[in-house]
Amino acid sequence: MRQEFNGTGASRGSVLGRARVRLPHALEVVEEHIAGEAIDDELARLHAAIAVVREEMHTLRERLHGALAHEVGEFLDLHTLLLDDPELLQGLNELIRIGRYTADYALRLQRDRIAAVFEDMDDAYFRSRVEDIDQVIGRVHAALHRRQGEMQGLAGDILITDTVAPAEIAQLQAHGAMAIVTASGSPLSHSAILARSLHLPLVVGVPNVLQKINDGDTLMIDGGSGLVVLEPNAEDLRGHRARARELKRERKELHRLRREPTRTRDGVDIKLYANAESREDVAEAHALGAAGIGLYRTEFLFLQRRELPDEDEQFRAYRDLVLGMTGRTVTVRTVDLGADKADHTGLALRDEPNPALGLRGVRLSLARPDVLETQLRALLRASGYGPLRILLPMVSSRAEIRAVRGHLARIAGELRAQGHAIAEQLPLGAMIEVPAAAIALASFIDEVDFLSIGTNDLVQYLLAADRINEALGELYTPLHPAVVRVLRDVIRHAHTRGVPVAVCGEMAGDASFAPLLLALGLTEFSLHPSTMLELRQVIRNHDLARLRRHSAGLMRARDHAALARWLDSNTGH
Amino acid sequence: MRQEFNGTGASRGSVLGRARVRLPHALEVVEEHIAGEAIDDELARLHAAIAVVREEMHTLRERLHGALAHEVGEFLDLHTLLLDDPELLQGLNELIRIGRYTADYALRLQRDRIAAVFEDMDDAYFRSRVEDIDQVIGRVHAALHRRQGEMQGLAGDILITDTVAPAEIAQLQAHGAMAIVTASGSPLSHSAILARSLHLPLVVGVPNVLQKINDGDTLMIDGGSGLVVLEPNAEDLRGHRARARELKRERKELHRLRREPTRTRDGVDIKLYANAESREDVAEAHALGAAGIGLYRTEFLFLQRRELPDEDEQFRAYRDLVLGMTGRTVTVRTVDLGADKADHTGLALRDEPNPALGLRGVRLSLARPDVLETQLRALLRASGYGPLRILLPMVSSRAEIRAVRGHLARIAGELRAQGHAIAEQLPLGAMIEVPAAAIALASFIDEVDFLSIGTNDLVQYLLAADRINEALGELYTPLHPAVVRVLRDVIRHAHTRGVPVAVCGEMAGDASFAPLLLALGLTEFSLHPSTMLELRQVIRNHDLARLRRHSAGLMRARDHAALARWLDSNTGH
Repeated sequence: MRQEFNGTGASRGSVLGRARVRLPHALEVVEEHIAGEAIDDELARLHAAIAVVREEMHTLRERLHGALAHEVGEFLDLHTLLLDDPELLQGLNELIRIGRYTADYALRLQRDRIAAVFEDMDDAYFRSRVEDIDQVIGRVHAALHRRQGEMQGLAGDILITDTVAPAEIAQLQAHGAMAIVTASGSPLSHSAILARSLHLPLVVGVPNVLQKINDGDTLMIDGGSGLVVLEPNAEDLRGHRARARELKRERKELHRLRREPTRTRDGVDIKLYANAESREDVAEAHALGAAGIGLYRTEFLFLQRRELPDEDEQFRAYRDLVLGMTGRTVTVRTVDLGADKADHTGLALRDEPNPALGLRGVRLSLARPDVLETQLRALLRASGYGPLRILLPMVSSRAEIRAVRGHLARIAGELRAQGHAIAEQLPLGAMIEVPAAAIALASFIDEVDFLSIGTNDLVQYLLAADRINEALGELYTPLHPAVVRVLRDVIRHAHTRGVPVAVCGEMAGDASFAPLLLALGLTEFSLHPSTMLELRQVIRNHDLARLRRHSAGLMRARDHAALARWLDSNTGH
Repeated sequence: MRQEFNGTGASRGSVLGRARVRLPHALEVVEEHIAGEAIDDELARLHAAIAVVREEMHTLRERLHGALAHEVGEFLDLHTLLLDDPELLQGLNELIRIGRYTADYALRLQRDRIAAVFEDMDDAYFRSRVEDIDQVIGRVHAALHRRQGEMQGLAGDILITDTVAPAEIAQLQAHGAMAIVTASGSPLSHSAILARSLHLPLVVGVPNVLQKINDGDTLMIDGGSGLVVLEPNAEDLRGHRARARELKRERKELHRLRREPTRTRDGVDIKLYANAESREDVAEAHALGAAGIGLYRTEFLFLQRRELPDEDEQFRAYRDLVLGMTGRTVTVRTVDLGADKADHTGLALRDEPNPALGLRGVRLSLARPDVLETQLRALLRASGYGPLRILLPMVSSRAEIRAVRGHLARIAGELRAQGHAIAEQLPLGAMIEVPAAAIALASFIDEVDFLSIGTNDLVQYLLAADRINEALGELYTPLHPAVVRVLRDVIRHAHTRGVPVAVCGEMAGDASFAPLLLALGLTEFSLHPSTMLELRQVIRNHDLARLRRHSAGLMRARDHAALARWLDSNTGH
């Protein structure tokens, strides 16, 4: 029977598909008891799960080959051995049979008991063994709750879930999810921002959706209006087709904007730069009429390899980039590696307690002058082929910029002496992402030629909220009065001093924040080409003078709700 | 032969003792080759180290007992097995014999080779096995460099080292170190602040000290002037005794300050509150004439135990605290647990990628209303016994304070209905440690009764520099223009609104920062009793009006060096 539910549209798109329900993760296993007659079923359930894990480990073992098959195999065997431990199994059986606990909770209790013994040992070696226990128990927990093909092969399905973490969005799309519906969440959350940037339709805030929809149900959802229809009828399907046509028409219209300027209604030109990582990004940026490359991340040159890239390899990459943009400005950021990146070159530290607050960005470059020098040499050589700017990540002090300037001047002299043709002037800029850099901008603005505000990290540090930590829920948000104030101050200060300033975080690529950034005075955005035309369209629909008049209201907002209301009342005209 | 070196005094005290030289950690093992004739020695060195580790593991195995001896033993055996792996050993031998690498670098190369194979596997299970390899190789590395009793039994010794990390300071003192001399570092570093708070003499910045002093040398150091004397003569010893007498005299004079007011030269009263964790701290705070307790950390009630403390246990602790301060104000901070604390109650999350940016402080309390409610009930009940204030850690928004206020009002009503005598008014305050809270203070200041600036975390977040990460060196420092500006703005804003504000981080307990904090307008300090009299003395020696006149110069400082110069020229009159 047809049923209709209403949530909030968070990422546009109309999708017709099969529901795939994901029950909440058993992160917090709660104490739960079973009835006497359920004991045997629960035991069977537990032992079936253990058998599944044993089989998995066996399959993994089979797939082993090569030099280390022996050592790795030993570890696998050991974990299998733990699974077969008679004491462990007997304990679990007793907890279920006598304590009448669920298999989940019995596992949790056994885990805690074993961990307690390990953790009390005075040698770090033993304490770290708790991780092995957790891996084995975790595998069994997962097996207890695994449904047919969960998380794999979502092809064509609409995922129904309680919440969705930012880190999962791209993964779910890669697994084939066509759309996502969540019980909680906000259209201004980090997850929603990512869904929009990936054009993955998302409806958030559908109350009790997990109770209302079952696996395999036929659904129709509209990520624009937030409508979710169970067992849609003919009329719904007509609506779906109409929306699909409308979206197609809009995309066509967007396509026409490729050759149009990015100009507000009242005639103010806004610069759209592209964030790029690949040759394809650069080609697309060029085709979409980007003003240039506002952020070229060089990490990809360092990841998934064991040796550091040498000067010639880097030089070729930067030169091709400059040539690819045919005279438009290209901004290359020096390598921003940290302990949280999958670095195999040995450049980044391992095992920092808080990688986000560690030796990364320009700090790491200055700690490894050999690496910095190689990159600067390659950049200086590429600067002979077209307009190039250098951007430093994680700047927090005047001293860091001066140190890099010192290296640059020395290397430029050496290269000229060696007969290289390099640019007369090579603008040097700083990312504004460390709060101290934003707050103490006056202390070093005379040392930079341009600024780029990295809202992803800036928001994370200002709010002390890790943007990939899903336990924080909605704590990470650019809609906080402190973020708005810092953005306004940095933009205003830079403009007063005649220093160009762009925003290059995800916030810039999400058209829904455009009115806010325009009201704060921003005139340069840097974003991935995938959402550039949408942003251009939104900017073309706004009257800048009107937004600026409304900026006082923005600055008065005292919380997330008030900022969301401001955005709401200043969106779309 | 007598030799004299000059460094910078960073923590006072004159010490005569034996040198214990600690060579730099092999954190970064560099490529190094050996001469052909050294091959056999290097092989012997490596195998001796492996034998030592094998013996260590054997000893550990022997000490195993109890329920899990079997499983733990298996892991140990497996690591021992890895040590005996013929492929691994042969590879190492070849690298040393044919590649002529040092044993250190050969180990590093083998580690990387093995890790590469593991890391390329597509199962998280195998990838995590790299940690096992690292543990084994790490043990061998450590054995290669171990000197007789290193780091243990420093009793009476003076540690000579390249740098010293903040996290090591207390540990070294516990191991018996009498003093520390470092080749690099600054007297305003976090390590120096800690050394002063622990009264551990420290001389920093003695160039090439590791090359000049040998293990076992007789040394005399003066942590005041920065003087280091090798093989001191009779005259040096006289100087040492004179300084020791002088220090004793000063301590006596400090002791007299117990009954004196904390008043600047020009007659302005400054309030000194105590940070306290134990009954002893409270008694000492009372005896030293503290204005009250400015920060009572409740984490100790939650650590090193498996069950959460119940309401009655908490109530008794808070009541005794209030009674112990006989009418002076007591400020209790709600529990500030996070994934970085050794929590066994299961309250804090485990394995957050960046615990410092995770679910901690008031965020965790609000995520666990049962825990918050128990603590608030206990606090409300204790408020019937004397003046009590509640302080919330990690506040970042108006919504958090309002949520706690809601709980407080409801619980107060319930307790009154149950006949409990509770305070009419229970002041509620916020820690200012998340940058967003400092910057957007205007958005919630009407919701708080007082503020306490936690400079430890505030500086860490503002600079995006983990204060316990030693790789960051001097990046973590309160002497940054952004920190100074934020402190000034918060203090000024709070005073304008008539809201009391204190600083309770380590910065407040270090008398060397007192002129800066006074110049910024601070009138309330909260610090551990151990340095309270020193701070009182320094405050009594300063003229507040003069400092405030000089505050413009402070605000103009653009870097660490300029701030250090300001402090230097405004210290001691």
